[in-house]
Amino acid sequence: MAPRKPPASSGSAGGARRMPPCTNNLTTALLMDTYQITMAYAYWKNGTHERPAAFDLLFRKNPFGGEFTVFAGLEECLRFVSNFGFTADDLAYLKTTNAARNMEPQFFQHLQDLDCGALRVYAQLEGSAVFPRVPLMRVEGPLMVVQLIETALLNLVNYASLVATNAARHRLVAGPDAVLLEFGLRRAQGPDGGVSASRYAYLGGFDATSNLEAGRQFGIPVRGTHAHSYVQAHVGMADITNRRLPYNPTSKTPGSDCADFVALVRESLELLNRETRDLLPEAQRWGVTNESELAAFTSYALAFPAGFLALVDTYDVLKSGVPNFLAVAVALRRCGYQALGVRLDSGDLSYLSLRARETMRAAATALGSARAGGFEDFGITASNDIHEEVLHSLKQHGHAITAFGIGTHLVTCLRQPALGCVYKLVEIDGTPRIKLSEDVEKVTIPGRKRAFRLYTKNGPAVVDVMLGEDEPPPEVGKRILCRHAFVASKRAYVQPARVEKLHHLVWDGAAGGVPAEVDVSLAAARERCGDSIRQMRSDHLRYSNPTPYKVSVSEQLFNFIHKLWLEEAPVGEIV
Amino acid sequence: MAPRKPPASSGSAGGARRMPPCTNNLTTALLMDTYQITMAYAYWKNGTHERPAAFDLLFRKNPFGGEFTVFAGLEECLRFVSNFGFTADDLAYLKTTNAARNMEPQFFQHLQDLDCGALRVYAQLEGSAVFPRVPLMRVEGPLMVVQLIETALLNLVNYASLVATNAARHRLVAGPDAVLLEFGLRRAQGPDGGVSASRYAYLGGFDATSNLEAGRQFGIPVRGTHAHSYVQAHVGMADITNRRLPYNPTSKTPGSDCADFVALVRESLELLNRETRDLLPEAQRWGVTNESELAAFTSYALAFPAGFLALVDTYDVLKSGVPNFLAVAVALRRCGYQALGVRLDSGDLSYLSLRARETMRAAATALGSARAGGFEDFGITASNDIHEEVLHSLKQHGHAITAFGIGTHLVTCLRQPALGCVYKLVEIDGTPRIKLSEDVEKVTIPGRKRAFRLYTKNGPAVVDVMLGEDEPPPEVGKRILCRHAFVASKRAYVQPARVEKLHHLVWDGAAGGVPAEVDVSLAAARERCGDSIRQMRSDHLRYSNPTPYKVSVSEQLFNFIHKLWLEEAPVGEIV
Repeated sequence: MAPRKPPASSGSAGGARRMPPCTNNLTTALLMDTYQITMAYAYWKNGTHERPAAFDLLFRKNPFGGEFTVFAGLEECLRFVSNFGFTADDLAYLKTTNAARNMEPQFFQHLQDLDCGALRVYAQLEGSAVFPRVPLMRVEGPLMVVQLIETALLNLVNYASLVATNAARHRLVAGPDAVLLEFGLRRAQGPDGGVSASRYAYLGGFDATSNLEAGRQFGIPVRGTHAHSYVQAHVGMADITNRRLPYNPTSKTPGSDCADFVALVRESLELLNRETRDLLPEAQRWGVTNESELAAFTSYALAFPAGFLALVDTYDVLKSGVPNFLAVAVALRRCGYQALGVRLDSGDLSYLSLRARETMRAAATALGSARAGGFEDFGITASNDIHEEVLHSLKQHGHAITAFGIGTHLVTCLRQPALGCVYKLVEIDGTPRIKLSEDVEKVTIPGRKRAFRLYTKNGPAVVDVMLGEDEPPPEVGKRILCRHAFVASKRAYVQPARVEKLHHLVWDGAAGGVPAEVDVSLAAARERCGDSIRQMRSDHLRYSNPTPYKVSVSEQLFNFIHKLWLEEAPVGEIV
Repeated sequence: MAPRKPPASSGSAGGARRMPPCTNNLTTALLMDTYQITMAYAYWKNGTHERPAAFDLLFRKNPFGGEFTVFAGLEECLRFVSNFGFTADDLAYLKTTNAARNMEPQFFQHLQDLDCGALRVYAQLEGSAVFPRVPLMRVEGPLMVVQLIETALLNLVNYASLVATNAARHRLVAGPDAVLLEFGLRRAQGPDGGVSASRYAYLGGFDATSNLEAGRQFGIPVRGTHAHSYVQAHVGMADITNRRLPYNPTSKTPGSDCADFVALVRESLELLNRETRDLLPEAQRWGVTNESELAAFTSYALAFPAGFLALVDTYDVLKSGVPNFLAVAVALRRCGYQALGVRLDSGDLSYLSLRARETMRAAATALGSARAGGFEDFGITASNDIHEEVLHSLKQHGHAITAFGIGTHLVTCLRQPALGCVYKLVEIDGTPRIKLSEDVEKVTIPGRKRAFRLYTKNGPAVVDVMLGEDEPPPEVGKRILCRHAFVASKRAYVQPARVEKLHHLVWDGAAGGVPAEVDVSLAAARERCGDSIRQMRSDHLRYSNPTPYKVSVSEQLFNFIHKLWLEEAPVGEIV
């Protein structure tokens, strides 16, 4: 493959800017379906390739049985648009394809000069709560270019929005205080499935990821401790080569270095066993803990005395893992360090976390605050096949978990692994076009539209409404009739206390690119996501049977749709 | 991000070679979970980082309710291993993470020099049918490096094998003659989800993809025609600017150019309508077809006279799309060209394809072979939400489809979007290690193992068997006792007529890389996939309730597993 183009210049006179190349090197101009090239050729051959066209990018159904979606992927789309263009290598490959066999050479010359300089893109802002049928983006420009970028835009929006929505749903169920960690890289659909999942899970409200590459690319906090293999890799204390632990130099209370941390751990384990015995129910007392596990925890603590978090389920959480963890925590404390907590990766997370907390509390009580201050605050991270429903069930049954590590279900969106965004022609050469279908849900809303979110006096959003480009926007305090696009009887007057414009010009090719005022940072999108969801009524966000949020059109647009529909639909004929 | 390392040198004295960089630029040394770095540090700090270790990469359950899996992703893993190493940029980022806060600077110096030169990787061959618990790969080498590459290998194998398996299952149901096209890019989980899906769908038996980038990267044939938007973008014949069509210069029968192809199409449509009327059942006769569709087909045929394939469901397949297609096909024929066929993208594919075929046959009959030779062979491509079950149902109910375009279900593996490959320590410092679990399926088979596939006289494979490294391999004609690894009563004597060694040395770091005899090409893997599946008994491949294929261990390995199990499992104590 040819080297990527150098990053585009990042500024212009008007403050509009072009963006750096896409995160993934596979996002080339050839990241398209073959039919985009064949259509482009047919338009070019017919001389209609520069006709002004407008396409809407939209979805028709919220994912995961929910009633909202989080829009994501816009920044990446703008990178794509900023850098779109065929390299010499792209064209050389194209010419070798079967599809290009009889194409005229001048066509490739035309492709060579193509870019998105004549495009305008309007979009909702990244991170916003969005709803079916209201376009996420509208792309305007010469027919050929607008058509050529279809698949890349769909690809970049579909999965991004799906993961962001999935993450936001997990956040809603887990509540604002739980720490949510994305752990999905190994099960993701490819390297960029993993990296994108980390990015958009963070956008949707996760706190951190295990994925270092995503951490680097997007500045997301990273988190991680150790695996079962670390425990398995130890056989016993003989595996520990250096037993010395310096006293914590940043500790407020003074102390001296520990010459034999292994002995201190053993001593602490015996002390704990003795002193917690009467405080614990019989079933939770322990006998001999697993030696290789104790060795692994000890060596890990020697490496990370200030960041000790132990995976406690390799052998037996309550009889081995938690006691071994506490023994190391006590020993660390005597050297001036505070352990962080434990991770559970199997079993009944509700039961185990509650019992683990009991054992931690018994230790705190037995040792007294002088020896065990902070022992009640240990983190308990859970990471076994967690998903939205598990979070919901844990909430109902009680648990003592402070952080959730979520992988497969989050990143592959196991409950629904694809969002069905589509890209539909709505206007050509100034003429609005409708796409009919026997399935009313698939009928497109013709023409270029403006969209607004209307809020009531009490705060929450009540309806999204689309109007024709030529209509005046809704006004605060002024009643507007909002109609269901297809069901004539569904309509309501709304007197908005606040009107939010949903579509913003995010790419203005002629002016140099992304307007200066458009903030496409991940941090902004993450904040917008939280804000946007908080402005929804809770019944739209509910886990079970949420209320559909209303999406409507103006009276004028309603009438226009139905006029066009009648004009286009063939009249049945009884022969 | 720093520039990638230059591609590794591709040869060595012994013929072993290093591979080019990974396909995706995100597949860096940092494509790992944070805990790999923290564990690496803890090993390094404890001085145990160079202990020889062996990890198995395996899965525990076949996907999609089936009884086989296709192994894929090996070539990409070898690219990763060939180029693994931390760049200065990687290390600079690592040092900024919270996890690295208290790490000693010498650790990063150690990381700086790390590569996979001390590793050996054994693997089954890419494209092979593989089964639960038999390692897909075994990675041997210094503990730290072997642990550091865990997540990347899992990531590169999991999705690849899932898609390849999915594709192979589609191929089994569709039969060897159907043309299978991968159309999933827009709904895939990110750009590389799309590109990887094309690659591994091809490996699993698909014929082509719509994805041009995948076509370029892997030499996969590409296919595509036009979208609904192409039809919508035309209003009527006035949209056609150049009506001239030169007579096909490669045609065997001579003829003259057509000055007004539009008129010829109109004339052909009238002719067809008149002459097929009595040959078609009343419900299939047509009146006035859609004009914008006819214009779109006409302009498309003018651009691709030798490659005309029309999407016929924008308005009405039988009353408009197929008649319009046939009219253009007749006109093309008069100019010496043969149309290719139609594509259906909605509705009842069984019914519509059968009726479309009837209409095509009626046209052929009415016009006679002189005017309509080849009209019975038009392709019918179907592409609406197709998956394995739809293919199965179409087969049962009858259809006239010759090619299937399959997207969302194939590329996102909607039925099961993740394969659960794991990476387990099986030996450290010469000591076999077992990982116990209350779930017997999760117990690992300890130590380094050799694996063989045994075939009966009649041909098909009957059992995969694992033996300890020190055991002699099974021999042809010699009875061997094959035991279920965990259920003592499940065992059988097998007298193999053929013995296939399953694990091959695919990376030998000390010898320079990938041994010369290892063929990692996509073409080889694709062929291997077909061969490997053909060698399975059909009941293992069956769509409904397939028979599980037997995976076993030798008597000696069985005894060893259970000895180790008893040694490691804590003995319960009644207090």
